[in-house]
Amino acid sequence: MERTHTCGELTIASIGEDVVLQGWVDRRRDHGGLIFIDVRDRYGITQLVFDPSYEEVFKIAKELRSEFVITINGKVEKRPEGMINKGLRTGEIEILVNKCEINNRAKNPPFQVTEDSSISEEIRLKYRFLDLRRSELQKNIIMRSRLMSIMRSYLDNQNFVEIETPFLMRSTPEGARDFLVPSRIHKGKFYALPQSPQTYKQILMVSGFDRYFQIVRCFRDEDLRADRQPEFTQLDMEMTFIEEEDVYNVVEGLMKEVLRVLLNRDVVTPFKRLKYADAMSLYGSDKPDLRFGMEIHELNESARNSEFKIFKSTIESDGLIGAINFKGGARYSRKQIDNLNQFIITLGGRGVLTAKVTAKGWDSSLSKHFHIDDIVAINDEMGASDGDLLLIIAGNKAEVRQYLGRLRLKLANDENLISDDKFNFVWITDFPLLEWDEESERYVAMHHPFTSPKSENIESLIADPANVKARAYDLVLNGNEVAGGSIRNHNLENQMKVFKLLNISDKEARDKFGFLLDALQYGAPPHGGIAFGFDRLVMVIANKKSIRDVIAFPKTTAAISLMDGSPSLVSKKQLEELGLALINNDAKKSS
Amino acid sequence: MERTHTCGELTIASIGEDVVLQGWVDRRRDHGGLIFIDVRDRYGITQLVFDPSYEEVFKIAKELRSEFVITINGKVEKRPEGMINKGLRTGEIEILVNKCEINNRAKNPPFQVTEDSSISEEIRLKYRFLDLRRSELQKNIIMRSRLMSIMRSYLDNQNFVEIETPFLMRSTPEGARDFLVPSRIHKGKFYALPQSPQTYKQILMVSGFDRYFQIVRCFRDEDLRADRQPEFTQLDMEMTFIEEEDVYNVVEGLMKEVLRVLLNRDVVTPFKRLKYADAMSLYGSDKPDLRFGMEIHELNESARNSEFKIFKSTIESDGLIGAINFKGGARYSRKQIDNLNQFIITLGGRGVLTAKVTAKGWDSSLSKHFHIDDIVAINDEMGASDGDLLLIIAGNKAEVRQYLGRLRLKLANDENLISDDKFNFVWITDFPLLEWDEESERYVAMHHPFTSPKSENIESLIADPANVKARAYDLVLNGNEVAGGSIRNHNLENQMKVFKLLNISDKEARDKFGFLLDALQYGAPPHGGIAFGFDRLVMVIANKKSIRDVIAFPKTTAAISLMDGSPSLVSKKQLEELGLALINNDAKKSS
Repeated sequence: MERTHTCGELTIASIGEDVVLQGWVDRRRDHGGLIFIDVRDRYGITQLVFDPSYEEVFKIAKELRSEFVITINGKVEKRPEGMINKGLRTGEIEILVNKCEINNRAKNPPFQVTEDSSISEEIRLKYRFLDLRRSELQKNIIMRSRLMSIMRSYLDNQNFVEIETPFLMRSTPEGARDFLVPSRIHKGKFYALPQSPQTYKQILMVSGFDRYFQIVRCFRDEDLRADRQPEFTQLDMEMTFIEEEDVYNVVEGLMKEVLRVLLNRDVVTPFKRLKYADAMSLYGSDKPDLRFGMEIHELNESARNSEFKIFKSTIESDGLIGAINFKGGARYSRKQIDNLNQFIITLGGRGVLTAKVTAKGWDSSLSKHFHIDDIVAINDEMGASDGDLLLIIAGNKAEVRQYLGRLRLKLANDENLISDDKFNFVWITDFPLLEWDEESERYVAMHHPFTSPKSENIESLIADPANVKARAYDLVLNGNEVAGGSIRNHNLENQMKVFKLLNISDKEARDKFGFLLDALQYGAPPHGGIAFGFDRLVMVIANKKSIRDVIAFPKTTAAISLMDGSPSLVSKKQLEELGLALINNDAKKSS
Repeated sequence: MERTHTCGELTIASIGEDVVLQGWVDRRRDHGGLIFIDVRDRYGITQLVFDPSYEEVFKIAKELRSEFVITINGKVEKRPEGMINKGLRTGEIEILVNKCEINNRAKNPPFQVTEDSSISEEIRLKYRFLDLRRSELQKNIIMRSRLMSIMRSYLDNQNFVEIETPFLMRSTPEGARDFLVPSRIHKGKFYALPQSPQTYKQILMVSGFDRYFQIVRCFRDEDLRADRQPEFTQLDMEMTFIEEEDVYNVVEGLMKEVLRVLLNRDVVTPFKRLKYADAMSLYGSDKPDLRFGMEIHELNESARNSEFKIFKSTIESDGLIGAINFKGGARYSRKQIDNLNQFIITLGGRGVLTAKVTAKGWDSSLSKHFHIDDIVAINDEMGASDGDLLLIIAGNKAEVRQYLGRLRLKLANDENLISDDKFNFVWITDFPLLEWDEESERYVAMHHPFTSPKSENIESLIADPANVKARAYDLVLNGNEVAGGSIRNHNLENQMKVFKLLNISDKEARDKFGFLLDALQYGAPPHGGIAFGFDRLVMVIANKKSIRDVIAFPKTTAAISLMDGSPSLVSKKQLEELGLALINNDAKKSS
């Protein structure tokens, strides 16, 4: 029996046809002598009817259990009036089965596939082959595939060439740790898995490929946090003879196309742009969620005459008095406000000050510290009116911004201020080139060491490194950094200046990136690019909370695959062949 | 100045236009006061003219050297009659330059990019960023990208879903060695890089994805031979509820589409099929090149009455007297024939016997050992006529076939019997399930251990393992195995029988493939698939001799990247973090 239709396609147009379906037993119901089976595949569900007058086949039907794999032959019939299911494509028909073959049996599964049960993620990951039968997950994985396909078509049409770069490359740890791969043929030497194809894609620009892209796996051996995977997928792009605007154009066109084809949504371009400094001061984050307002306001000026000790000392120490306006928040109970206070304390702050806005001013212990004119001015500036709640934090600038940014997100979440079906893109620009790393007491690259400084800043690089801006940009979607990129140093001299600032010696630069430095000397064109965190992008577009919901075989936050049990021990012989020995860690600790 | 056109697109339709081009200085000629520069990019070459009356720009032109990167502005003009180059798209125009900016300078390159010079591959790989500027290589890489894109579109349209499987997986060495990746978080444990996504794609079928594909990197830590890379790309496919014919259909449609779109070639389907046993006896190879004939004939029957010692002993020891007919080969000199003899000796054989076919019989020392009727019969069967040369080898069956198969290829090569633009596909079918491994004294899987035996053979599995056929198939193109696949064991019981034959204990099976065995118990559908060696396919289609010509950044046969110098030493700190120590191999040897 050869399949004639999938389980998702038969309608009343096929009434009377003789069909063969194949799939999984989804549900079985015994009903007034008849047995009803829902048979399921990737495409949908079709109702089968087994009539006891077909004795042979009825006997088989009695054997069927959840997740059995079957092939059936039967006739398409209209369902009786009362049994029509308009919500289902196949909801008006059923198949009267006259032949049934069991292709494979199934043990009783540890959880029901179709019920969105509250089974633990651990069990679901262990039995991923069952979990992946859930239509929810199948939808995500198929959508991911479509997204890739749409992206590729779009970039193809824009003259981009997909070029595969090596997975076994040179180890150049910078930022995150490399995963290493020992060489058996060259014992004692190692390859590294790419953290990104950065150097190779720059080489491709030097080679004249003009427009490159790749959807490619990358690897970072980080101490894991929620929603990070040791391996992740990037949409990686690079272009020659371009400026920032060209990258924005291509990416905006790409996003517009993706959302149009995938979700029939129209995204307005060009996207909003926000300088890094403004993002930090307005939203306390370089990946602000702009689907709602509640910007941070600075009250330093208004509080300049206040005698309130906290404000006074904050102003004196060049700190920040920041505030957000929680519209209608005056209705919050003392307990609810305490919760917000506790939230800030948990983050490491000293708490949050509040002022309920009334028609007459503020209902707050703070009101006595402000002149009524200042209160009116603050209300005015913050768009606050009767019934609103102002949330105020004073202290170190960076911390206040961070706390208010988090508070802003928490309130939006608690109060359902965010409409799920908005797609709000924003470019973050004008990043600092460097940031000071307290631990190593040196500047490190905020983006990566190949990022070009803004040309007007090249001269000031050495004199005033902290204020040099980078030609870097991030794309933020609904509060998630979905892509980041930059214009690169195509000029060897500038590249070496940046290395010097980063305290990377000529020798170290040569050792790590020698081939790229060579390449820059043989006719490197101006170039730049961007890379999308593809998993995250899918997650945001699919409106999922976890990246594991859009990856077929994810690892846990401890970097373990619960299904195949990797990482695992390997044989002595394998290690010997690699010229490696395990260090006995206990022994080492005690020595 | 923003690029208005690429270097490959301007024609006489644009005469008079003001344009901006960007690219690399390909060639410079000084001519009657004018300077001519060919500027090159991925899309083509355009001729620039610098006139000394434009003083400023002429000064810059004098500075220009090969591989400098420039941006120019100028006017499109018609070339003077004598200078038109019809072979070039841009060959009828030139640009009179009025502005020129040097974007980057280039050191004198170690080899000229455009000349197909006889520079060593070692130098070319070290300076891959220059080598990749050659139009030949660019053509291959861009063609590779197009091939991927055509494949993906075709499979998309056939309802296949591209699903990404993990790169960090469980080590299950079987056949080749795994590349290992030490875990830092779980010291002493390792991930392995996939030799193929075999187990995962089977899991995806169990999960109901119905039709999966992926263009994916795979890894094998083999002792390298020419034209093998430690990392290589596969087009990997798997389908549910199918038989061999369904795989053939999809693949034949895919190949037809690829060659139609890419090369405007029509390939006839269905492809020829050849049983493994017939391929071996007719061509001495399981990847026969069918672009020419010269099949192997068996002369045992005709030589049965011969008193010739070699033939007698061959027949007695159940060996083979095999022959091929080299049409017109009687013209070969003694020296040329000696060469063929030497070729067989180098392969390990005892040499080759020859018979020049004449109108009267054979001009050969062998003719006295045959009755003239037999000679006529042999000539007849082999289609041999006056002027042909029969090449005959006697001995062990497998060896004779191998030698004659190699000789056949050598002659085709030496004599240019193969037309370069033929695409000859053939399915090899009916492989043995197992082959005996002399070294380990056990049966090993000829394909892989998940391959299903032919159903009629399941019962004989244990009784007569050597004669069990597999539901496996290879696709051969022009003598290259470009794809291989099989129908899998979807039934746990059969899978365990195969493991038993392979001497894989239940415990070992559980340990290595536990998750797949679990999956087979929860409703595994019948499924099968195929995987293409993508690099090789591109190589054959692009008609290249080396796989390194179709990979952007290949490694040498010693698995070294000459450009980035990987594999390389890593820091002590990196090793310590992984809980690893290098074994001092010298010390070990002397202990």
